[in-house]
Amino acid sequence: MRILSGIRPTGKVHIGHYVGVFENWLNLQENHETFYFVADWHALTTHYEDTSMLKGYTYDLLKTMIAVGLDKSVLFVQSAVKEHAELMLLFSMIVPLSWLERVPTYKELKQQLANKDLSNAGFLLYPVLQAADILIYKAEGVPVGEDQVYHIELTREIARRFNYIFKKQVFPEPKELLSKVPKLPGTDGRKMSKSYGNIIPLITNEQDLSKMVLPMITDPARKRRTDPGNPEVCPVWEYHKAFGTADIPEEKQWIFEGCTQAKIGCVDCKKLLLKHMVEKLQPIWERYEKITNDDVMETVERGNKRASEIAQRTMEEVREAVGIMY
Amino acid sequence: MRILSGIRPTGKVHIGHYVGVFENWLNLQENHETFYFVADWHALTTHYEDTSMLKGYTYDLLKTMIAVGLDKSVLFVQSAVKEHAELMLLFSMIVPLSWLERVPTYKELKQQLANKDLSNAGFLLYPVLQAADILIYKAEGVPVGEDQVYHIELTREIARRFNYIFKKQVFPEPKELLSKVPKLPGTDGRKMSKSYGNIIPLITNEQDLSKMVLPMITDPARKRRTDPGNPEVCPVWEYHKAFGTADIPEEKQWIFEGCTQAKIGCVDCKKLLLKHMVEKLQPIWERYEKITNDDVMETVERGNKRASEIAQRTMEEVREAVGIMY
Ligand code: SF4
Ligand code: SF4
Repeated sequence: MRILSGIRPTGKVHIGHYVGVFENWLNLQENHETFYFVADWHALTTHYEDTSMLKGYTYDLLKTMIAVGLDKSVLFVQSAVKEHAELMLLFSMIVPLSWLERVPTYKELKQQLANKDLSNAGFLLYPVLQAADILIYKAEGVPVGEDQVYHIELTREIARRFNYIFKKQVFPEPKELLSKVPKLPGTDGRKMSKSYGNIIPLITNEQDLSKMVLPMITDPARKRRTDPGNPEVCPVWEYHKAFGTADIPEEKQWIFEGCTQAKIGCVDCKKLLLKHMVEKLQPIWERYEKITNDDVMETVERGNKRASEIAQRTMEEVREAVGIMY
Repeated sequence: MRILSGIRPTGKVHIGHYVGVFENWLNLQENHETFYFVADWHALTTHYEDTSMLKGYTYDLLKTMIAVGLDKSVLFVQSAVKEHAELMLLFSMIVPLSWLERVPTYKELKQQLANKDLSNAGFLLYPVLQAADILIYKAEGVPVGEDQVYHIELTREIARRFNYIFKKQVFPEPKELLSKVPKLPGTDGRKMSKSYGNIIPLITNEQDLSKMVLPMITDPARKRRTDPGNPEVCPVWEYHKAFGTADIPEEKQWIFEGCTQAKIGCVDCKKLLLKHMVEKLQPIWERYEKITNDDVMETVERGNKRASEIAQRTMEEVREAVGIMY
């Protein structure tokens, strides 16, 4: 199955990306033809007002994607494959505005951001560009979170409408691959957010990591070491689950007993977490250190080229079906 | 001054295009650097449902543009310069939806066409694509009719907003060149329209032309040859003005006296018109006949290439200003 997914370069890569996105992508690349891209045009929809970091974030995402081991996939940058823009333009001709106005994330975000000047045209067009991203590769599967299911449904509707209007089966209808990865909370237990300062970057080192993990918020019931707690309401346990402790019966038992009976301190618990995190992340940090600028550029240029070849082939079919001169 | 203008390939070229568009373009090319393009992407906004003639209309427009003598200009096809789509995408990120919703032609057409499924996203984006068409060449002047003045104002606003947000003076602000050419009515005196069957094609021959001109509707007061009429309310006189009779004092007088005093018949009047039309159009017909497929393709490939060079150069500046990787 051909699988496609993208990630927006709107900030530094953090541990939530690893657990929520990259691990899933790594699994998928083992058995499928996978295309992963940095969606830099999409980043502009909400971040056009300050683009000073855009190129840096894009580059760092690519380097990180290589470091985590995604190099069996085709890694590319959206803005390098101009055909996405052409296909979006053509799709915009056949997509009724009403389809876009009813997109839940559009309605929702528009309310949330009523004061921020975010209702630009590109914001409304987001799902059309996304449909172009997916359909130009004739991707069959798209790993998404639940909030994106409607977008994939819309992509299928656009594929159907194009095929119907231009009387040619150019586009297959992609399926969403729902990944039920839990969202990692920030170090203070709230939603990870740059503005809260509660984010753990993916690329760091053991010393800095421990400075972020050891002060993490725990079950507030454990004010003193002698107070019993409950891992189920503790953000640290969320991390344990994400980093494998939950899969080791003895360790899981040690935490549950230790926590609920106040036999261990939170620091003991966090030190175990730290051990697991370092085990998993150290190899990524080491690879990241060794990746040169040439490595990054070579990988991405190759990916861009491969993506472009497919995109160009699809666009030839598209132009033929539309009946346009070029 | 660099001047740019486009024409949509939505039907056969008619005499109204010659009088309303091409004559103006011909004048402009004498003293300016002129770029004229066939706006085939724009044609899709309203004609996506049947594109069987799109390529044919595009080709014929190009051939006709050469035949009327526009070959001192850069003649090209919009869809051949993909950068227009890329710039439209980037503009869509910074253009507030409210700017588009208040475009008069949008509000108007949306009402008129409430039943036709025309409110597609591309229809709303029309002025954004148009701004990209103009600004990508840094055109300084855009010949337009009165109904397009708002679009040029919007283009200037988009140029300003881009320069402001990305802190670089990439785009100059184009001026509209208002051409006050009267709109030729159809042969029945109503607005020229394919559905009325009242259109005179530009490329025809003397015999066919006379079959369209001689039965033209005249001042309804002249039921009989002995009834006096008034040229000012006669569509034939509109044509006389467009084809030069009005500039020849004796002929103008002959018609006004003859018509208002019933000294001439309408057929006499129309025969004089026919003479002037043939004088002006015969050379175009002859050139049109001689233009080969190779001539057309060579001219347009050269135009596409020239346009692409400029568009690419502008896009390099744009990407640099936006701060995007590619
Ligand atoms: S012992 Fe572990 S799971 Fe229990 S509250 Fe402390 S950090 Fe959380
Ligand atoms: S004489 Fe000429 S201007 Fe007068 S009504 Fe007839 S066609 Fe029209």
